[in-house]
Amino acid sequence: MAQQHLEPTDPLAGPVTGDALAGYLRSQATEFLRALRRHREGGAETQGPEAPVDAARALRRSVRRISASLHTFRPLLDPDWSESLRPELAWLSGTLGMEHAYESRLERLLLALHRLSGAVFPAQGAGPTALTAQPAPAPVPDRGNLTVGAAKAGALLDRQLTLARTRAHSTALQALGSSRFHAVADTIAVLASEVPLVKSAAGTDLHPLAAAAQERLDDAATALPLVTAGHPYNAEALIHGLSPDPSPHPQDAPWHQVRLLLRLHRYAREVLSPAVDVRLLSAGQCLDRHRDASEAAAAAASAARTPRIAPATAYALGVLHADQRHEVEAARFAFQQCWQKQAVST
Amino acid sequence: MAQQHLEPTDPLAGPVTGDALAGYLRSQATEFLRALRRHREGGAETQGPEAPVDAARALRRSVRRISASLHTFRPLLDPDWSESLRPELAWLSGTLGMEHAYESRLERLLLALHRLSGAVFPAQGAGPTALTAQPAPAPVPDRGNLTVGAAKAGALLDRQLTLARTRAHSTALQALGSSRFHAVADTIAVLASEVPLVKSAAGTDLHPLAAAAQERLDDAATALPLVTAGHPYNAEALIHGLSPDPSPHPQDAPWHQVRLLLRLHRYAREVLSPAVDVRLLSAGQCLDRHRDASEAAAAAASAARTPRIAPATAYALGVLHADQRHEVEAARFAFQQCWQKQAVST
Repeated sequence: MAQQHLEPTDPLAGPVTGDALAGYLRSQATEFLRALRRHREGGAETQGPEAPVDAARALRRSVRRISASLHTFRPLLDPDWSESLRPELAWLSGTLGMEHAYESRLERLLLALHRLSGAVFPAQGAGPTALTAQPAPAPVPDRGNLTVGAAKAGALLDRQLTLARTRAHSTALQALGSSRFHAVADTIAVLASEVPLVKSAAGTDLHPLAAAAQERLDDAATALPLVTAGHPYNAEALIHGLSPDPSPHPQDAPWHQVRLLLRLHRYAREVLSPAVDVRLLSAGQCLDRHRDASEAAAAAASAARTPRIAPATAYALGVLHADQRHEVEAARFAFQQCWQKQAVST
Repeated sequence: MAQQHLEPTDPLAGPVTGDALAGYLRSQATEFLRALRRHREGGAETQGPEAPVDAARALRRSVRRISASLHTFRPLLDPDWSESLRPELAWLSGTLGMEHAYESRLERLLLALHRLSGAVFPAQGAGPTALTAQPAPAPVPDRGNLTVGAAKAGALLDRQLTLARTRAHSTALQALGSSRFHAVADTIAVLASEVPLVKSAAGTDLHPLAAAAQERLDDAATALPLVTAGHPYNAEALIHGLSPDPSPHPQDAPWHQVRLLLRLHRYAREVLSPAVDVRLLSAGQCLDRHRDASEAAAAAASAARTPRIAPATAYALGVLHADQRHEVEAARFAFQQCWQKQAVST
């Protein structure tokens, strides 16, 4: 795992104690406060339309890391403090992430519709979204190249996902103005200077806790059907593609779980060392792609249940659903390849 | 190419001349006459329900081989005779193959619908078809496990492909009773004892002609997009999946062409040696699967254009179409793997 690049803070080297955790948490809390300030300034539109997007992303980024550290290094932190903060961070992270999720889902589905129509996709501008400004419509490409069914499917998805995104936008705005949020922000402001470590933390080695996070990841990844996933075109992901169950495919859940465990492992490594493990990043990207395709496939299936749609629209949504389920399968294959290499090199 | 198994008739060994071609054609003509007799007896239902199916298959099998030899070894055969026989064999092969093609297409699509529904497929009996008996309905599995859409899609495909199959059955029966067929059968009856070779045939080596057939195959296979095909999940086969063009995907044509050239090469090898090249067989099976999936995908797309179908039916047909297009992609990947091994070992 890129050991040759790690020197003073090699995670496999000598003990790293609670001080390192405190430093990490302080810096993430500082990042959070900086992003919050940028976000508020962006709301006043002093920094161009993209600033709030970046700021919102940076907010989520630091929230995820603080939350992960509270989880992985729980024994080193004041239990009352961390148990009360963790659900608040989960709420915040979930609420802030929805708008972006709907936006990128729509973009993914419209791109796929164009690919499936053999149409050339027009160059896109950066899709402007903002938690503070009204959400701009996602960049819908020219529908002239699509069949009637594909164009109607695109319009239907655009309508449904833009509505969902607008609602997520309002919810996020409400959240950021709520007293609940202000309480979280206050807690994090304190964290930026003062980390509530337990007394024994200064003498506690973080490695065993980080190793436990890695072990949880390894166990969950080992339990995945990686042998099947490593056989291209195994046609597993589309099983149940027409099942009567409208809920997302249950077969995806263990992969989503590994995605979360991989992130926890990655953040735990960050506490121990600033060195980036490129393979972990790649493996995580495969699982992000898996999650995105899984959710896009579900959105296409859900749109197809809209009453009174034309058969051509439903047909296009069926093709699109299957296409995204194959993306799910492709992402599993890519993860398997990546994970196998990792297992060999460690 | 399995050279170690070839001894007296090693295709790479000493010259094989027109005599071998005459022997091969005589034996194929004899096979044809035997199959024709079995088929007629099967029509009188003296040999159980499967005899006519096997007989029809054997008829097509010998027709394809005679036709291929006329093509590959044209310079050795009386030109008037072979030029007049070849279109008749093509007609016969095409006419006799349609019923089976519709039957297996329906079976493939119904199996896929069940797989996509996550349903357990009930054990099937051998699907009885006969050129002489009324076609039995294809084994439609219990629809209880399917969603409304999948069940309706299955019923629609069943109706359309069974109708097409019944028509193909009648056409084949008519063909077998026609004076045109009797003329072909008479010509083949003569061929069973007397092959119209040109005078120089006895001294002509067949190898250069067989090598030319192989070269045509190699050239066409080399021109295929094998690099892309060798990257799993390249998503090429579903491009144009929603294109306005209702005709089968033009990207499939070169693969269909290689399928035919591979068969010509395989039959040319048969003339030179009875040894079977297992890799050639496997490569051919990949391309058969490619053709079958391509045609099944087209049948699903075509069924989706039926007026007044329910959106749920259209959705299921869309999923099914995409599934079969991925089968097309999977078959290309399998062919690429097979062909690469072959290229390395020769």
